[in-house]
Amino acid sequence: MSLRIIATGGTFDKHYDPLTGNLVFRDSVLPSALVRARITEPHVFEPLLALDSLDMNDTHRKQILQSCAHSAEDHIVIVHGTDTMRETAEVLGHAALAKTIVLTGAMVPYLIAGSDALFNLGFACAAAKLCGHGVSIAMNGRVFAWNDVKKNRAAGIFESAH
Amino acid sequence: MSLRIIATGGTFDKHYDPLTGNLVFRDSVLPSALVRARITEPHVFEPLLALDSLDMNDTHRKQILQSCAHSAEDHIVIVHGTDTMRETAEVLGHAALAKTIVLTGAMVPYLIAGSDALFNLGFACAAAKLCGHGVSIAMNGRVFAWNDVKKNRAAGIFESAH
Amino acid sequence: MSLRIIATGGTFDKHYDPLTGNLVFRDSVLPSALVRARITEPHVFEPLLALDSLDMNDTHRKQILQSCAHSAEDHIVIVHGTDTMRETAEVLGHAALAKTIVLTGAMVPYLIAGSDALFNLGFACAAAKLCGHGVSIAMNGRVFAWNDVKKNRAAGIFESAH
Amino acid sequence: MSLRIIATGGTFDKHYDPLTGNLVFRDSVLPSALVRARITEPHVFEPLLALDSLDMNDTHRKQILQSCAHSAEDHIVIVHGTDTMRETAEVLGHAALAKTIVLTGAMVPYLIAGSDALFNLGFACAAAKLCGHGVSIAMNGRVFAWNDVKKNRAAGIFESAH
Repeated sequence: MSLRIIATGGTFDKHYDPLTGNLVFRDSVLPSALVRARITEPHVFEPLLALDSLDMNDTHRKQILQSCAHSAEDHIVIVHGTDTMRETAEVLGHAALAKTIVLTGAMVPYLIAGSDALFNLGFACAAAKLCGHGVSIAMNGRVFAWNDVKKNRAAGIFESAH
Repeated sequence: MSLRIIATGGTFDKHYDPLTGNLVFRDSVLPSALVRARITEPHVFEPLLALDSLDMNDTHRKQILQSCAHSAEDHIVIVHGTDTMRETAEVLGHAALAKTIVLTGAMVPYLIAGSDALFNLGFACAAAKLCGHGVSIAMNGRVFAWNDVKKNRAAGIFESAH
Repeated sequence: MSLRIIATGGTFDKHYDPLTGNLVFRDSVLPSALVRARITEPHVFEPLLALDSLDMNDTHRKQILQSCAHSAEDHIVIVHGTDTMRETAEVLGHAALAKTIVLTGAMVPYLIAGSDALFNLGFACAAAKLCGHGVSIAMNGRVFAWNDVKKNRAAGIFESAH
Repeated sequence: MSLRIIATGGTFDKHYDPLTGNLVFRDSVLPSALVRARITEPHVFEPLLALDSLDMNDTHRKQILQSCAHSAEDHIVIVHGTDTMRETAEVLGHAALAKTIVLTGAMVPYLIAGSDALFNLGFACAAAKLCGHGVSIAMNGRVFAWNDVKKNRAAGIFESAH
């Protein structure tokens, strides 16, 4: 049972640019995070996009869906910005692929002290292995179905939509 | 569905002592790791032991079993040294409690650069939520049944015993 | 010979705000950085300002000058944003106080992986102890006189103005 | 005015070995620490030894002295274990080379959370640039003459011998 990990950008993968003082995208941190995690489970890393999720449009979401549809691996983790993670999950959810797809991200970039990124990656990898087919969001130590989740922006947490 | 996280020591929780140059136990790093993980799932932290797992004996394993047996939470993560994680899992497995118990640990202490600890904690928390009743070991991005796992000391990884 | 360390903000002291995704000011990181540095030299920490140095105006620079003038300690380190560090150094330089004043900062925040902040702080503390009276900028492992320094923004380094 | 940085091992440069659980020597962390420090001052790195300073003998100290004597750079930082830093400083001090030699180290390894290593490296680099010819120890934010320093092992700090 092998795993595909798809990078799409988001807070998880932001780097600090010393010249501009901005948080930007560079090569994904995921390959080094996965080495550090000492995973022996066979897995494939796919650097698909490097976007702030507020900059994602329908075309980007279709690209993500295509990657999932064509994936030889049935267990997929997508690292994604939190702001529109729900929207991407919805596109994937409606497609109803016979695969287990788990979206995760971070509230603090992997490279910044006190980041939740590595915890979330571990949590999402386990969820992608253990959940049945379907699409879910793994954040805050919880697993949410794609059609029952929203981001509470004021609190900075994900919660059930109902 | 709430979670109990039990600290027993192990590499995960080692601190560096500047006076002796040794790795030792102090207050567990788990409370701060759990804050950092931004878990909203209700959870309880229990600092039970602070031992190198090579120093664990039958009495210690019975203590761990008692904690699990008396736990009000049915989903339990035990942070444990890797060297005798299998032995503790076996004691818990034979007890056949109607609970989901997942043991995890780390090959590199949480406080040392490049540690796998936070990934493993995330992975184990998801496994403890998603697996059915039983005892397993979550390491290297995999979930092993308590009666089919061994630590390969030369390679520093867990693998199936068969 | 005791030391005064004055925080004024700048990249050195930026925190990540998980709710907005911006780098902002909170309580200075300097008290914990100084504990970590294990300094036994008597020293005083003064949290004076928390500003991006591009937001500093003449009033702020006068405040910094007043702090230096009234300081009971003759050896002063000022942690400052890099963009207008030279301008503040000039105000202090013209005042010609009978004190050793060293400005430093960081190209990467203290709390972000790979930061130069702690190195620069150590470098500046030594310069503040060892240089004679006057005002200098300590960055990039070098000490620049206040009237012979400029920031090369394209390269992200400080260099001689001549 | 260029700088030579000599690695000899010590706590500063200890790595964690996941297979044995011991702190050991690997490739020095200094090259990456120096990149991180964004030093533009010309400098040379020399990986001379990789030893616990308790394992250093007279032959090793002579090697260090030879490196200093033959160094084309007149400003030298030696990263050294703290336990016998004073003894090495004494050998170098008696040699009375016409160079500025500063020994430093760390109470917590560079790769462990809360390390003083990077601060000490910055402090020592400034001292090596700014002090006159002679041998000193830079630790705890202070500069000690080679013949007036001792390590207080109970407190884990360096202090004047008198």
